[in-house]
Amino acid sequence: MPQLPFVPVIPAGGAGTRLWPLSRRSRPKFLLDLTGEGRSLLQSTVERLIPLADGPPIVVTGAVHEAAVREQVGGSGAVRVVAEPSPRNSMPAIALAAALVEREQPEAIIGSFAADHLIDDDAAFTRAVALARETAERGYLVTLGITPTHPATGFGYIERSGQRAPGSQEGRDAAAGPLSGTTGLGALPPGAHPVARFVEKPDRERAEQFLSTGRFLWNAGMFVVRASLLLDELAVQIPSLAAGVREIAATAGTERYPAVFERVWPRLTAIAIDHALAEPLALEGKVAVVPAAFGWDDVGDFAALARQLREHPVRALGEGGERASADGGDGDVRVLGSATVDAVSSRATVYGSTDRHIALVGLDGISIVDTEDALLVLADEQAQDLSVLVARLERCGLGRLR
Amino acid sequence: MPQLPFVPVIPAGGAGTRLWPLSRRSRPKFLLDLTGEGRSLLQSTVERLIPLADGPPIVVTGAVHEAAVREQVGGSGAVRVVAEPSPRNSMPAIALAAALVEREQPEAIIGSFAADHLIDDDAAFTRAVALARETAERGYLVTLGITPTHPATGFGYIERSGQRAPGSQEGRDAAAGPLSGTTGLGALPPGAHPVARFVEKPDRERAEQFLSTGRFLWNAGMFVVRASLLLDELAVQIPSLAAGVREIAATAGTERYPAVFERVWPRLTAIAIDHALAEPLALEGKVAVVPAAFGWDDVGDFAALARQLREHPVRALGEGGERASADGGDGDVRVLGSATVDAVSSRATVYGSTDRHIALVGLDGISIVDTEDALLVLADEQAQDLSVLVARLERCGLGRLR
Repeated sequence: MPQLPFVPVIPAGGAGTRLWPLSRRSRPKFLLDLTGEGRSLLQSTVERLIPLADGPPIVVTGAVHEAAVREQVGGSGAVRVVAEPSPRNSMPAIALAAALVEREQPEAIIGSFAADHLIDDDAAFTRAVALARETAERGYLVTLGITPTHPATGFGYIERSGQRAPGSQEGRDAAAGPLSGTTGLGALPPGAHPVARFVEKPDRERAEQFLSTGRFLWNAGMFVVRASLLLDELAVQIPSLAAGVREIAATAGTERYPAVFERVWPRLTAIAIDHALAEPLALEGKVAVVPAAFGWDDVGDFAALARQLREHPVRALGEGGERASADGGDGDVRVLGSATVDAVSSRATVYGSTDRHIALVGLDGISIVDTEDALLVLADEQAQDLSVLVARLERCGLGRLR
Repeated sequence: MPQLPFVPVIPAGGAGTRLWPLSRRSRPKFLLDLTGEGRSLLQSTVERLIPLADGPPIVVTGAVHEAAVREQVGGSGAVRVVAEPSPRNSMPAIALAAALVEREQPEAIIGSFAADHLIDDDAAFTRAVALARETAERGYLVTLGITPTHPATGFGYIERSGQRAPGSQEGRDAAAGPLSGTTGLGALPPGAHPVARFVEKPDRERAEQFLSTGRFLWNAGMFVVRASLLLDELAVQIPSLAAGVREIAATAGTERYPAVFERVWPRLTAIAIDHALAEPLALEGKVAVVPAAFGWDDVGDFAALARQLREHPVRALGEGGERASADGGDGDVRVLGSATVDAVSSRATVYGSTDRHIALVGLDGISIVDTEDALLVLADEQAQDLSVLVARLERCGLGRLR
C-alpha cells in the first residue's frame, strides 16, 4: 500500500488536427464528449482521479483554454487550474506542477495523466495507480504500460527488461531486479518491472515482433514519480528547466507570481517528458513500468474513435441496428450528437450537431462529421491523412475553420 | 427528308426518389441543373428540340410544377405548357398533346422526349429524329433506340426483329422487312428497323446476352409518330382514353376548356405509353426503331449521375485533380454547386449548395449531397437502395424533406 500523499497532474494541451472538424483549435479534444456519456474527456479524467488524490488535481492548460477548463472542472474548487502563457510541450507543464506540489508537500508523489485519453475500467486503473505509487515511493520514475491487444502502429511502446520467467517472473523482478542495489533504488514491488527502453511508433512488422516477445507494452504517457525526484533528475538533464519551474513555484501565492511566471515561462525548453526524462532515465535503470490491462486509447484519429464507439455505450442507430437489418443489411451506425440519422446497409460513425437529417446508403467504415461550417466525410482506413487537409485550411484562407 | 410538320412533346413529370435530396417532390429532376452547364435538364431538352420544331414544343407537367416550368421555359412563348390536374402517367400526357396537335395540324408528326434525360450529341440526335420522322410519315410508331455501350441493368431494351446480315443489314431490313406489304405500312427507310419486342430491365446475365446478339438497343422512351395515328391506335387499345383526350382538345382555346379538362382528366386510364401502345403495336409489326449512337442517360440514380459528371464538363477539384495528386493520391472529385471542397485521395461526387466547407479523405465511389435540411452520403454501388430511405421519411414524420 502506498504511504505518501498523491497529487494528480493533468496536462490538458495539444490542439491536434486528426479529429477536425469535431475538435477545433478553440475546442480541443479534451473539452469534447467523445463517448456520448454527457461529459468531456477532461471531466472523465478528473472524476477518475479525484478519489485517488490527497490534494486537488492540477490541470495545466493553455491560457486560451483556461476559461473553458474552469467552466468544466474548476467550479467546485476541487481542481487547481494552471494556465500556461504559451505551449511548451509536456515537460515544462508537468515540471511546473511538480514544483508547485514539492513546495507544499515535499514528500508527495505526483501522477501525470493526459486529459484526453479514454479509459474503460476505473477499478483496474485505480489498482495500477496504487502499485505505481508504491513503486514511485521506492525512488523510481514509474510509467503505466498498457498490455497490447493488437499490433498497433499508432502508439509508442515500452520494453520491459529482464528475461521472462513464466509463473514466477514478477517475483523474480521484484526480488532480484538487475538494477536494485547498484543504483540506490529500492526493490521493485511485485507487479512492477524495470524498463529497458521506450520505442517510438513502430511499423506493422515491428509491432507484430513486439507482441510476439511478450515484453512490450503500449506507452500511454502516464508517469508516477515523487515530485522532488522528478525535479532533481530534471536538474541533471536540463538544469535551466528545473530551476525555472522551481523559481515560478517559489512565488506561488504571492503577488510576484504572475510576473515571474510570464517572465520565466517563455524561456523554458519546450520538450516532451519522454525525451527529457523517461528515455535518459530508462538507460540508467531508473524507470519502472506497471503493466495494466484496462481498456485504453488516446483516440488519436477518427479510426480510433470509431473503434471506441463500437465498444462503448453510445447511441446505435435503430437500437442495435434493427432498422438496418430490417432492410437485409448488416449495418452498424453509431451516432454521437443530436443528429437524426437513417441508414441502409451502412457501417459508419456520425458526429452530428446540426438539425439536418442525415441519410446513409451502403457505407463501409466511414466517419461523417456534420457541423455548421464544415462537413467531413472520411474513410476510417485513411484517418491519418486528415491532417493534410487541416494543414491546407490555413493556406486556402480558411484558417477560421481550424 | 421528312415532309410533314413536326411538334415536340415533352412530358415533364415523375417525382422520383433516387436523386434525393438533390431532387425533391417540389423540385423534380427536370428542373435541376445536373451538369453544371447553367441550365436545367428541361431547358436543355427544350433548347435541343426548338430548332427541329414546326410549332411550339408542348411541355406537359403537373399543376404543382406549372409555375416553375413556365419560369424556366415558358417566358418567350416559344413553348406551350399544359398542366395536368393530377399525374396519370405518360400515355394520357402524350395523348393529350397529340390531340392538341391533331386538332391544329392534322398531318403533323409528334415526337415525345422525356424532360429529364441527358443527351450529349445534339447533331446525332437531330439526325436520328429526322430519320424517325421520315419513318413515322410512313405510318409507324417509331422509337429511338440507343446503341448500348455496356450491359446496363437499369434500362429497358428494344429487340430488333430480323436476322443480322453484316454489312447489308440495314438495306435488307428496309427493302424486305417481314412486315411491309402485310400491314398496309410503307417500306422502312434505310436505317430504321422493325421492332420485335420491348423488354423490361434485365438482370446482368440477360443484359450480357442481349449485347452479344447485336439486336438489342436501350429503350430511351423516345417516340415519334403521326399524332392522328397515335390517337387512332389508342382508340383501338383503350377507347375511353383516346376519346377523353380528343374531348379535352376539342375545347382548347374556348372558355369550356378548363372545366372539361378538370372533369375528363381524372377518369383517364393512368398508364405508361410503353404498355398502352408500344408493346401491343410491336406485336402487330407497327413499331420501328431508329438506332442512334449518341450519348444518352436517364440519370436514374446517383451512380448514373456520377458517371455522367465524369464524362461531362463539370467542375473538377483542383483543375483535373492536381491538388489530390499532389498528395500522392489518385483522386477525382467532381463538384456540382457552389460548395468549397478539399479532398485527399478521393474519388467522389459532391453536390453542395450550402456555404459549408466540405472535406473528403480516402473515399472511393461516394456521392455526397449537402443541403440546408438534409445530408446524404451514399456509396454509388448501392445507389438504387436510396429509395428505401426516402420511402421511410414519410413514416418517420419527415415527409417535409421529400
